[in-house]
Amino acid sequence: MAVGVSVPMIDSQERVTGTIAYALNAELPGTLVGQVLRSPHPHARIVGVDASRAERLAGVVAVLTRNDLVDQDELFPYFGPVIRDQGVVAIDKVRFVGDPVAAVAAIDEDTAREALDLIEVEYQELAAVFDAEEALQPGAPILHERFPAISSGFADVILHLDEGTNRCNHFKLRKGDVEEGFKQADLVLEDVFRCPPVQHVPLEPHVTLAQVENGRVTVWAGTQTPHVIRAQLAEIFRIPLSHVRVVVHTLGGAYGAKCYPKLEPLAAVLAWKARRPVKIVLTRAEDFLAVSKHGVTIHLKTGAKRDGTLVARQATCYFNAGAYADISPRLIKNGGYGTAGPYRIANVHIDSYAVYTNIVPAGAFRGYGISQGAWAYESQMDMLADELGMDPLELRLKNVLRDGDTFATGETVHDMHYEELLRDAARAIDWQPAPPSPFEGEGLGVRARRGKAITCVIKGTVTPSTSSASVKLNEDGSLNVLTSSVEMGQGAKTVLAQIAAEEASLPLEKVAVSEPDTDSTPYEQQTSSSRTTFSMGSAVGLAVRDVRRQLLVLAAEQLEASAEDLVAQDGRVAVKGVEDRSLSYGEVVRKSRRGNLLGHGSFVTQGGLHPETGQGIASVHWHHATAGCEVEVDTETGKIAVLRFHSNVFAGRMVNPRQCELQTEGSTLFGLGQALFEEMLYEGGQLTNPNLSDYMIPSFEDLPCQLTTRIFEQPGVSEMHGIGETSVPPVMPAIANAVARALGVRITDLPLTPEKVLKALAEAP
Amino acid sequence: MAVGVSVPMIDSQERVTGTIAYALNAELPGTLVGQVLRSPHPHARIVGVDASRAERLAGVVAVLTRNDLVDQDELFPYFGPVIRDQGVVAIDKVRFVGDPVAAVAAIDEDTAREALDLIEVEYQELAAVFDAEEALQPGAPILHERFPAISSGFADVILHLDEGTNRCNHFKLRKGDVEEGFKQADLVLEDVFRCPPVQHVPLEPHVTLAQVENGRVTVWAGTQTPHVIRAQLAEIFRIPLSHVRVVVHTLGGAYGAKCYPKLEPLAAVLAWKARRPVKIVLTRAEDFLAVSKHGVTIHLKTGAKRDGTLVARQATCYFNAGAYADISPRLIKNGGYGTAGPYRIANVHIDSYAVYTNIVPAGAFRGYGISQGAWAYESQMDMLADELGMDPLELRLKNVLRDGDTFATGETVHDMHYEELLRDAARAIDWQPAPPSPFEGEGLGVRARRGKAITCVIKGTVTPSTSSASVKLNEDGSLNVLTSSVEMGQGAKTVLAQIAAEEASLPLEKVAVSEPDTDSTPYEQQTSSSRTTFSMGSAVGLAVRDVRRQLLVLAAEQLEASAEDLVAQDGRVAVKGVEDRSLSYGEVVRKSRRGNLLGHGSFVTQGGLHPETGQGIASVHWHHATAGCEVEVDTETGKIAVLRFHSNVFAGRMVNPRQCELQTEGSTLFGLGQALFEEMLYEGGQLTNPNLSDYMIPSFEDLPCQLTTRIFEQPGVSEMHGIGETSVPPVMPAIANAVARALGVRITDLPLTPEKVLKALAEAP
Repeated sequence: MAVGVSVPMIDSQERVTGTIAYALNAELPGTLVGQVLRSPHPHARIVGVDASRAERLAGVVAVLTRNDLVDQDELFPYFGPVIRDQGVVAIDKVRFVGDPVAAVAAIDEDTAREALDLIEVEYQELAAVFDAEEALQPGAPILHERFPAISSGFADVILHLDEGTNRCNHFKLRKGDVEEGFKQADLVLEDVFRCPPVQHVPLEPHVTLAQVENGRVTVWAGTQTPHVIRAQLAEIFRIPLSHVRVVVHTLGGAYGAKCYPKLEPLAAVLAWKARRPVKIVLTRAEDFLAVSKHGVTIHLKTGAKRDGTLVARQATCYFNAGAYADISPRLIKNGGYGTAGPYRIANVHIDSYAVYTNIVPAGAFRGYGISQGAWAYESQMDMLADELGMDPLELRLKNVLRDGDTFATGETVHDMHYEELLRDAARAIDWQPAPPSPFEGEGLGVRARRGKAITCVIKGTVTPSTSSASVKLNEDGSLNVLTSSVEMGQGAKTVLAQIAAEEASLPLEKVAVSEPDTDSTPYEQQTSSSRTTFSMGSAVGLAVRDVRRQLLVLAAEQLEASAEDLVAQDGRVAVKGVEDRSLSYGEVVRKSRRGNLLGHGSFVTQGGLHPETGQGIASVHWHHATAGCEVEVDTETGKIAVLRFHSNVFAGRMVNPRQCELQTEGSTLFGLGQALFEEMLYEGGQLTNPNLSDYMIPSFEDLPCQLTTRIFEQPGVSEMHGIGETSVPPVMPAIANAVARALGVRITDLPLTPEKVLKALAEAP
Repeated sequence: MAVGVSVPMIDSQERVTGTIAYALNAELPGTLVGQVLRSPHPHARIVGVDASRAERLAGVVAVLTRNDLVDQDELFPYFGPVIRDQGVVAIDKVRFVGDPVAAVAAIDEDTAREALDLIEVEYQELAAVFDAEEALQPGAPILHERFPAISSGFADVILHLDEGTNRCNHFKLRKGDVEEGFKQADLVLEDVFRCPPVQHVPLEPHVTLAQVENGRVTVWAGTQTPHVIRAQLAEIFRIPLSHVRVVVHTLGGAYGAKCYPKLEPLAAVLAWKARRPVKIVLTRAEDFLAVSKHGVTIHLKTGAKRDGTLVARQATCYFNAGAYADISPRLIKNGGYGTAGPYRIANVHIDSYAVYTNIVPAGAFRGYGISQGAWAYESQMDMLADELGMDPLELRLKNVLRDGDTFATGETVHDMHYEELLRDAARAIDWQPAPPSPFEGEGLGVRARRGKAITCVIKGTVTPSTSSASVKLNEDGSLNVLTSSVEMGQGAKTVLAQIAAEEASLPLEKVAVSEPDTDSTPYEQQTSSSRTTFSMGSAVGLAVRDVRRQLLVLAAEQLEASAEDLVAQDGRVAVKGVEDRSLSYGEVVRKSRRGNLLGHGSFVTQGGLHPETGQGIASVHWHHATAGCEVEVDTETGKIAVLRFHSNVFAGRMVNPRQCELQTEGSTLFGLGQALFEEMLYEGGQLTNPNLSDYMIPSFEDLPCQLTTRIFEQPGVSEMHGIGETSVPPVMPAIANAVARALGVRITDLPLTPEKVLKALAEAP
């Protein structure tokens, strides 16, 4: 048994000895250093770019500007996973402070930096807009007058484009009759919730090493989406996919920041111009300019009966996409339907917008639109409980989805475990139905007030979805797994090895798992959406079964038995009941003289939503998590201390219990930072805290005094669910609700800084 | 149509711009330079090795000696593709001048070289033996008292080991009754022919970059046999095959020199000791010590009827294996049965020996044992013709194999084209049945004498044999071919791309062919034996057909038609006869949502010879070639000029006619060097000419005045035959026979140096 066992990560030795290969360490002979010149303006027309002085600097091999990209037929100079709206470097305009305007390839970093200073760019400044709602007002400055192209994109993207406005996309969900629902309600709450853009802050910044030679483009990239990068580079260079190679080593963290093209097009086109390999590594300050989480404003209106039954919900979500679309056109779908929450609500009306503004482009981020919605609806659930005079736990238990209910998208849900998860969270923090009023901490000074809260969240996984895997059974019976899933610290390699070993009935030591190399490893849609264990795990399982089928057919002939009478176990094929009639896997392969056996698996899920109503299948199954927490707030300083935090999640069947726990702990801490202090601060479009002194992420000091997790499973019945993100969204509203319960005041915009706590206390009635 | 077209090599641009990636260029961060300490003695016992002074030298990271390899359980310190008789470094004894005794990994070359001088080795010299026949005499010094282990080896190896003697292996062929045959003969000739060891001299020397980390061994090696290297390293490091990765870039030539382990075990074990990557690049002088062609002595006795009918042949071949077995135990099989020649002979008796001696180990070499046999039998054929007073062409035409005949191995031959090949060679050099006497060149001084000759040769391809390939049809309809065939200038990538494009009905530009990477590219037995086009080409064809089958099934559903009514052509699947009902390959893949389609092919040939009689199936088909030449010999200087040389070969079906011609031209020149001057010269076991000043290879000055080739094919009927070596063996006897015809003297040991010519003339009656 390899599945269900907490084996150490199979790359743990490499991790602790520092020998693991990151893209950051990739080297090619003759590689140049790439550096990027960035816009100082949030919005400006480019009047002219003169790189001649930079090009004359000794040691400079190439300077890439828009002059290389216009009036030529070799390259299509725009990219973007859905809307190809981003120039490889800025072409007509710059749209945020930090927008790449030019890039230099030089023999060393100093030379490259010096050359950047010699590039002359003449700008004509334009009015800028930073807020998503403002950007949709008539007369707002328009970022994209036109879209250069639309990418073939993703099977699940619903597009309602509105070229020439700042509305980048619009998702609609219409279930039941929301007006009628509100009429039936005894109580209607209407609130506005906000959360700011925040950073992913992976330890390893964005990095790409690129080589363009002989009609082939090769990049070693720190990316979660090698096949998207391949497709985008093929579109830019106008070459077949077979001539683009994307190699991905282990990532030093990602959290969504490394989905979809970031640095890769610029590095590749710079290498094309330089005719030599080019490597670009972003500084931390630049990494802040690469991508962020979406800031959002959500107008949330919920109607309930006196007994707590939810009858109607209307949400309007303004996702701030920043300067370029990136994955926003798709993310607002999840952020849209997700705002319905894990509740049985007959009438739901949601509009979710991705809006262009002149800030850093927003993209995928651990929690993928669900955190923003959950921040709104789980905050409001406690507000509703207070208004109804109900125990918030009971309100949730009354409405939460159970097997056979329909979700906001109209699909029937199965395998729902909210009740046991909610009760587990309650138990973990000694939840007592308490009056919605602050109480003082026991045995503590009067300044400290304590509160508890419980939240629950629903999250889908990208559907439809495709993962393809190969396995190679070698002539000694060992197994190579070929997968394009990206290892980024989440343990993908380990989990896939466990699944392969289990399916093949081989010891884990005989299994090796590849890194992505799009020339040779099969298609994988993306390593994100908490889908690797489920989707690629299933594909690997299918591939092993394909090989096992071949193995049994060959062994049947060799053992002179029928394949049905054979069993493949512990590395041997044996005739059932006849112990001594058996061959090792390696013997079967060698006797067959086929050199190796090759198996394939493609795992494809089906689904999709109606473009006008959002009804259909949003997710092949549902990730669900709840959180329970207790906080203590210092009413004099406004500082929030998390005393206890309990996260739980439904995992279906666990592959590696210890890794599930660690992932869940990580998610909790990820949410903690966003709850308490993470925020990208802008002044006039200029990011003012792009460094780890001014932008805080949780440290050990911020850990909850008591941090517990529990993973629920239903082995033998359930699929392997992803759990990589599910525990992030419950954290922020849990802490806010506990603070509200402690202080009797409600903060509706993240993060819950001491300043906001004090201000709220001061303004409290 | 992509097959049958002389497209330029698909990597030609990389070749001429110098951007092609060779193993020589492979780099890893922190790579150390490896250098090898070699034995100064041809045969000696190692009394002691002291590396302590070398280890203390600043900049030295590791010194590997036998002290690291004995009394430990981590590694098995011997390797060898058949007999594991070679220590990673010498353990008990050294067995040739150049035998690796120790290796140093240091921060730079100078330090490594300096360290070599500090290693103290105490030897006890032993008597040595250099000649194969002498080495089999009683009382000869014994090289290997015991074999540390036998490798699982190759399916076609016949082993008759004799541990504790210098007989490394013995191949026997027994057909008919040879004694009875000689009784029937009117004429019996008995001669001894010799050829010396020669060098392959690829432009790129042997090179390996190795990394051993975290239980994984990775080598970037200049090898023709990545899967053999993988197996050997797995045996040395006692780990599963899935944990050994062999990556092979394009080789800068190979010619057999890079088959089977050479530098790889030493580099990998040195990297293991150093705990850092190590790269070893041999100097040219060291490359001469890595491997050579087998020197051989052949006792050949042939009986013929008065009318020229061959009735009996007995051959005893002593292949000088040098100090280690390498592939000799297998090569002597080909060298054995091959000595029967392409003739219908009812009674054949062959003994072929691989013999250990204290010189550089011999291994695979373009022509693989066939050149040596052909040197003997094609020389003797002209001698026989002279004795019989027959036209040598007629003698050959009378006896040469035709469809339905049986070869010496008892197998019936098909697809025989000797008659047309021989007549083509005759035409090409204006062959006239001429008296076997010298004649003076027309219009030339008296010193110059001219002669013509025609020779023919048969060569098998390794049988049984296995090639496995994968193809990946991408979502834009482009195709990646995954193969472990090695590109080494022979055009493997181009030919496999043409075959894939043809089978897939895609333009060549959409096809990309991988390099070997044993983690991800399927099993390939070896890139040698002229088998790539035939064997891997067939596997690639099967893999494409596998994908096409899937494509049609998917398209059938998408086009609402039966798969039988569909045709896949020019990148589109269409309903037969309904032009507008079609989808591009890419559309089918995208609609299927499978990401990519993966196809596999395994091509396995069956055969094998009886271990005692050599009867059975030696080759799945037969390569045949003939040569015609005219030489002019300067009787004063002894110098031979080749006036005309015509090589032809039967290719079955040509994939790339121009490449076939170029391969054949290359083979001819390869043979020319061996005919005229190539020879490794030893004095007391010390190689005296290990450099390209003293060891000559053909230059443009040595080119025949007129060099022509003709490739025969039978498209639609025949398989694609390999032609990479077939034209080498006819060259040496053709030139010798022409010289004999010019001068009336016979030289039986290669090369035909001016000194030998003058000596023969002086000794002539």
